[in-house]
Amino acid sequence: MKVFVLFVATILVASQCHGASFRSFPLKMTTENGDDDSYTEMRCASWRLAAEAHNIFGWETIPEECVEATANYIEGKQYRSDSKTVNQQAHFFARARDIDENDVILFSIDGTVLSNVPYYSQHGYGVEKFNSTRYDEEFVNKGDAPALPETLRNYRYLVNLGYKIIFLSGRHESKRAVTEANLKAAGYHTWEKLILKDPSNNSPNSLEYKKAERAKLVQQGYRIVAVIGDQWSDLLGLPKGLRSFKLPNPMYYIY
Amino acid sequence: MKVFVLFVATILVASQCHGASFRSFPLKMTTENGDDDSYTEMRCASWRLAAEAHNIFGWETIPEECVEATANYIEGKQYRSDSKTVNQQAHFFARARDIDENDVILFSIDGTVLSNVPYYSQHGYGVEKFNSTRYDEEFVNKGDAPALPETLRNYRYLVNLGYKIIFLSGRHESKRAVTEANLKAAGYHTWEKLILKDPSNNSPNSLEYKKAERAKLVQQGYRIVAVIGDQWSDLLGLPKGLRSFKLPNPMYYIY
Repeated sequence: MKVFVLFVATILVASQCHGASFRSFPLKMTTENGDDDSYTEMRCASWRLAAEAHNIFGWETIPEECVEATANYIEGKQYRSDSKTVNQQAHFFARARDIDENDVILFSIDGTVLSNVPYYSQHGYGVEKFNSTRYDEEFVNKGDAPALPETLRNYRYLVNLGYKIIFLSGRHESKRAVTEANLKAAGYHTWEKLILKDPSNNSPNSLEYKKAERAKLVQQGYRIVAVIGDQWSDLLGLPKGLRSFKLPNPMYYIY
Repeated sequence: MKVFVLFVATILVASQCHGASFRSFPLKMTTENGDDDSYTEMRCASWRLAAEAHNIFGWETIPEECVEATANYIEGKQYRSDSKTVNQQAHFFARARDIDENDVILFSIDGTVLSNVPYYSQHGYGVEKFNSTRYDEEFVNKGDAPALPETLRNYRYLVNLGYKIIFLSGRHESKRAVTEANLKAAGYHTWEKLILKDPSNNSPNSLEYKKAERAKLVQQGYRIVAVIGDQWSDLLGLPKGLRSFKLPNPMYYIY
């Protein structure tokens, strides 16, 4: 599989057109000088959009030039607004249905129900290559991850509507106690199942692991109404939920 | 299928945190007063991101409050940069492969290779409900749609690499002459096939129509290396290309 190819830094910026005067695009785009910051910001916004729509995949780190743009996005209001919008869509979808007792909604954990921004803010917002030992030591084992507030709000709505909640995470089984305690401390008080990765699990990647776990749930008689995750590997592959919701996460990519 | 649910206008804006001081999200988000424009811009950016990542689907028009934000986006530099990034990714993917003589790359037409911004700029950038008669009369039949420059550049790269190009469009067969002339005038001089919709075609929607046409291509012995389109209905369903690329289009949604 092709890994992320570094964003080519050729400077090609469109000349701006407005309203009804717009008729055609200039084919030769002018080079803009003297405003490198806004140019970098624009390109990093394009990179982020392309990653969210899964046009860029398999990337190991964010582009170095995008650390500041990523920090500004994640620590600012836009990330919260984006997270809210996706959670709202999931809520609108879920509440419009007649709920059956076997209906479940799946959530991923890290980056979906619990925020790992406290970790990533100390590690360049994704510019450092992921180190699972360090992540576990500095973040998972502490058990003090805050809730993503918009996801917590949605979770509460869904529980009140009568949906069963299943957390499906790539965290290892050995992290069960700390994960349960963290979920509760963050406000997630009830769930049908908390699925963690067994040491014997030999799935080649997260996508296959999560697909297989969803297949087991379907075999057990659950109907997966929605899957909510911040990674495409949470959402792709069969069986799917009736609908999938991709929360924003421009900091890392998990296969 | 659930159609687009109107964006709820509850004002909940996150208080901003910065850098290493960030530790947890405020659960009760403060309401911001006095800066309605930037608030609308933020929410419309969230709406656009959610639409691009297919978290919002089946929408018939853009939110009324987002006309200005959509116009600014489409007529400005960000759209061009976003379009360039996606085309670049497609190009990087295509050039890293050994090309077989049956390898094809599929492009949609409207909003992908030809820009219909000249039409939408006269019709509220997607806030008006789509009228196919008017679209044909005022836009398709004129045959003067400009190329999306970033797609044209990518097309040229791909042709030079040796890929066969197939255009697969929902335009009707009766528009063949004007479509061919428009493609050529816009700079698309060569193609393997131009697939338009036959009057007898009874596909229930664009997604099924395009799936069926891709299946025919596979039966004919082509290998679909990539599908490049501005609509999710260009990309979803089997058979797929080896990879799919979703160009930005926040103005309309086609099933």
